[in-house]
Amino acid sequence: MTRENLEGTPRLIRALRGETVGPPPVWLMRQAGRYLPEYREVRRRVGGFVELCLTPELAAEVTIQPLRRYPLDAAILFSDILIVPYGLGQKLEFREGEGPVLERVASRADLARLDLGGLVERVAPVFETVRRVRAALPAGAALIGFAGSPWTVASYMVEGGGSRDFAVAKRFAYGDEAGFAALIERLVEATVAYLSRQVEAGAQALQLFDSWAGALAEPAFRRWVIAPTRTIVDRVRAAHPDIPIIGFPRGAGLMTETYAEETGVDAVALDTTIPLDAARALQRRRTVQGNLDPQLLVIGGEPLQRGAQAILEALARGPFVFNLGHGIVPETPPDHVGALVEQVRGWAG
Amino acid sequence: MTRENLEGTPRLIRALRGETVGPPPVWLMRQAGRYLPEYREVRRRVGGFVELCLTPELAAEVTIQPLRRYPLDAAILFSDILIVPYGLGQKLEFREGEGPVLERVASRADLARLDLGGLVERVAPVFETVRRVRAALPAGAALIGFAGSPWTVASYMVEGGGSRDFAVAKRFAYGDEAGFAALIERLVEATVAYLSRQVEAGAQALQLFDSWAGALAEPAFRRWVIAPTRTIVDRVRAAHPDIPIIGFPRGAGLMTETYAEETGVDAVALDTTIPLDAARALQRRRTVQGNLDPQLLVIGGEPLQRGAQAILEALARGPFVFNLGHGIVPETPPDHVGALVEQVRGWAG
Repeated sequence: MTRENLEGTPRLIRALRGETVGPPPVWLMRQAGRYLPEYREVRRRVGGFVELCLTPELAAEVTIQPLRRYPLDAAILFSDILIVPYGLGQKLEFREGEGPVLERVASRADLARLDLGGLVERVAPVFETVRRVRAALPAGAALIGFAGSPWTVASYMVEGGGSRDFAVAKRFAYGDEAGFAALIERLVEATVAYLSRQVEAGAQALQLFDSWAGALAEPAFRRWVIAPTRTIVDRVRAAHPDIPIIGFPRGAGLMTETYAEETGVDAVALDTTIPLDAARALQRRRTVQGNLDPQLLVIGGEPLQRGAQAILEALARGPFVFNLGHGIVPETPPDHVGALVEQVRGWAG
Repeated sequence: MTRENLEGTPRLIRALRGETVGPPPVWLMRQAGRYLPEYREVRRRVGGFVELCLTPELAAEVTIQPLRRYPLDAAILFSDILIVPYGLGQKLEFREGEGPVLERVASRADLARLDLGGLVERVAPVFETVRRVRAALPAGAALIGFAGSPWTVASYMVEGGGSRDFAVAKRFAYGDEAGFAALIERLVEATVAYLSRQVEAGAQALQLFDSWAGALAEPAFRRWVIAPTRTIVDRVRAAHPDIPIIGFPRGAGLMTETYAEETGVDAVALDTTIPLDAARALQRRRTVQGNLDPQLLVIGGEPLQRGAQAILEALARGPFVFNLGHGIVPETPPDHVGALVEQVRGWAG
């Protein structure tokens, strides 16, 4: 099957605007990455992960790689949510098997170090990557830009890396609310600038990743997830009213609907735990995206097919974008991805 | 304030049976543990964590320790959810800073190794601990026994320890459904026997910990969380109809209500992400327990007080047990626990 609308609006964009597109558009979080041998080959050519993100020729190449293999409806910019702290001047390193390590923002005093004015220049290669990808995009496919949401990015900045319990970030957030609010405010500014430049360089849709939204109780969720996301959505939309925005509040559970309503995102991306009945209820008001368990993509065969089929049956008759509930894991056999994309593209309702 | 009902039914049990008890009963998950210097002193006296769990004199001592400091409404048996796999003959070790390490149950062939017949004898010291604690319990306090739920325990058994993505457990569960069902079935049998013996030794209420319930998409959640939990509840209740059962499906999010309805637990324990409005809705049908962020107990002061107050205002006018949304962390200052328990016990509505 070839891509539809060779000349017109990409299928992904139509779905994000609320249209029911049949079969539904499909892309997969972390579709460019370690599970692909051609990615690993490029990765070997550069010293560090940050270097790969900031080398437009290579970042564009890995962004496009999955679209050469599979008839996907979108490319998503190859980058990392921590490129924003890097752009603000924080030291950032990805250590093998350990994840990201950042210079810590330990308290309000450290905020002065964050260089908002230098951001756009420091991350300029990302916008060049966007331009290159957009120019190289297969007909009918759309290019998604992205950023992390302020709470998730702040948690890495304050913890100095990943965390299991967010103890340090919460101590900052609860112990010095005004100081933490100042950090979040800076991240809102940075994120608006970063996303707007991505759009100006050619991104046709945007996704906000709030991977650790599920770490917060309701009052903190409202303050550090919903409110800053809403500001980002409002400001990016004011500048670029035609660019749909997807919000991904991972782990939001019972707060998912409130998130969708109050942030004003065009589409809400659902993690694997969201039951399909609840997804269908959300779909009455906006496009939903999701939410296959990425482990099914490792397992393949009948369990993968059944899992995908259940999602299609539940959601593909409304505004919907097929995706996973979390990113592709490195152990995924590329053939399973091919089988899944074929199944979704072949869905006849 | 002294404990009420010196002669009668403990406040905790009344609340779990659906009574509104004012002020609400309070206990805290992992209230016996590393944050207490007197616990660390006992811990130093034994070689391993498993040894501590299986030495009745010491396990009873650490179970009672928090009740000497704070006017808590319950003691919870000091043990670990992995004592059941240990009782089935799996090698189990807790390594410093690394968590539990188990001999893996890699496939259906390994099920034959699990020795259901030897369980009760192997874990007999736990029942002796229960007897000792019950005899030493302060007036008015109740003793809670517990076990892990089959899915969570199975995930440790199959992974050989903790996991971030449950890749190995899911591969087993999806790749050999009948084999995984046989493992879950064995764990149901083991858990029913284990909990029944705890009740016979003196436990007055039970809690089922399903710490990793949130790892599963709906169909798997129904099959591996709800169905076996319901069987355990039915069978334990048939033998011990007066013993209330609390279910704690951590991370269940939008599946929490379905879990509460379909498992038939007397009370549902809520993690920190459950908004208080949703908790209040659940409370119309049964007792709820929870759900303060344990990090607030580390932070203390005003944020702790405000967090607890919001929960009390929302939930203490119905059937409710005050607790955390997850266990106490080792960094918690014991004074903060004292302040929290005092606040809950002093709540006047």
